[in-house]
Amino acid sequence: MALEIPEVVIDRLPVYGRALDLLKQQGREVVNSQELGERLGVTPAQIRKDLSYFGRFGKQGRGYNVARLLDELNQILGLTREWSMVLVGVGQLGRAILAYDGFTPQGFRIIAAFDDDPNIIGTTVDGHLITSVDELAATLLERHAEIGIVAVPGATAQGVIDSMVASGVKAILNYAPIAAQAPPHVRIKDIDPVLALQSMTFYIKDQD
Amino acid sequence: MALEIPEVVIDRLPVYGRALDLLKQQGREVVNSQELGERLGVTPAQIRKDLSYFGRFGKQGRGYNVARLLDELNQILGLTREWSMVLVGVGQLGRAILAYDGFTPQGFRIIAAFDDDPNIIGTTVDGHLITSVDELAATLLERHAEIGIVAVPGATAQGVIDSMVASGVKAILNYAPIAAQAPPHVRIKDIDPVLALQSMTFYIKDQD
Repeated sequence: MALEIPEVVIDRLPVYGRALDLLKQQGREVVNSQELGERLGVTPAQIRKDLSYFGRFGKQGRGYNVARLLDELNQILGLTREWSMVLVGVGQLGRAILAYDGFTPQGFRIIAAFDDDPNIIGTTVDGHLITSVDELAATLLERHAEIGIVAVPGATAQGVIDSMVASGVKAILNYAPIAAQAPPHVRIKDIDPVLALQSMTFYIKDQD
Repeated sequence: MALEIPEVVIDRLPVYGRALDLLKQQGREVVNSQELGERLGVTPAQIRKDLSYFGRFGKQGRGYNVARLLDELNQILGLTREWSMVLVGVGQLGRAILAYDGFTPQGFRIIAAFDDDPNIIGTTVDGHLITSVDELAATLLERHAEIGIVAVPGATAQGVIDSMVASGVKAILNYAPIAAQAPPHVRIKDIDPVLALQSMTFYIKDQD
């Protein structure tokens, strides 16, 4: 079934989850697709269609039970468990990633951080002892991690990704500005601010 | 016309542009939608449909002229000019953004950087003199910038966005972990690693 669901639909589910989480925190019990859509800039029809891939949620005209839909989305996305991550690259960006406090509350934990700079290896950054990248494979053999974060320069990124894949990493969050390659069973998402900027300029280019 | 083109299509155009740019650097003159699709994990039909919003490119069976299609995409996206950006927030993340060398080659230039920390204001980071965020409006009045980058904590992010909008910023790249709000004429893109992680776990959750 998973293969038939468009990736853009899967990409929207965490966004719905975040909005529902906020509503839940505000004590809301029910929300309809109209309001959810307005909060997220998505049409109500789109929300209903996206959710329809996963069965029936809510009753016509009565909206969704906030807590229940959130639970269901978390089940669907695999967010009812913890995920272990390794970080490679502890330069300026890697430090920002280690300092980022948004991962742990959502169940994503960086269990090890690596670099190839002798001046950085052996130091402690935000509570993480930085290990030589040469020990990546050995560490992943010993301490299982499903997710790898790549924060190295473009020139070395594909090699890091290949090592991660060879050591059983199944999903990669890539910050390096390259067209990263991985085998089909490994997921990759690029964090690329330039692509985001380039799709906004389309909309603002005629406003000056 | 712009309003009728789905945003997901616009989001894909910079990805096509990047692949074409690489092909051009490799000296390639022609590429067909089949090969372009394979490189990007998009179906050839999707590529042809996306491009069809903007007129006719290439000839049936002969593929696309790489340089010409790249030029056209750059025209469409507004990438034939330079864009000025202001950054607010020069903590760990803001420093990584100032150090990032991917913006300038693509025509995106950070012209001013702001923070509210007296210990940071007045220092120079990667060639940028850090200014008090109190001077954001005055600076934007004097030195026009179309794009704002938000790298402050979640609690202060919406206020920063409101100030940017009030000072004429038209597109915002938001790194803060909030559901940022802006009026309809202002574009916002969130750089959110957690959303990226949460859509990958869907695919790997049953692989263990």
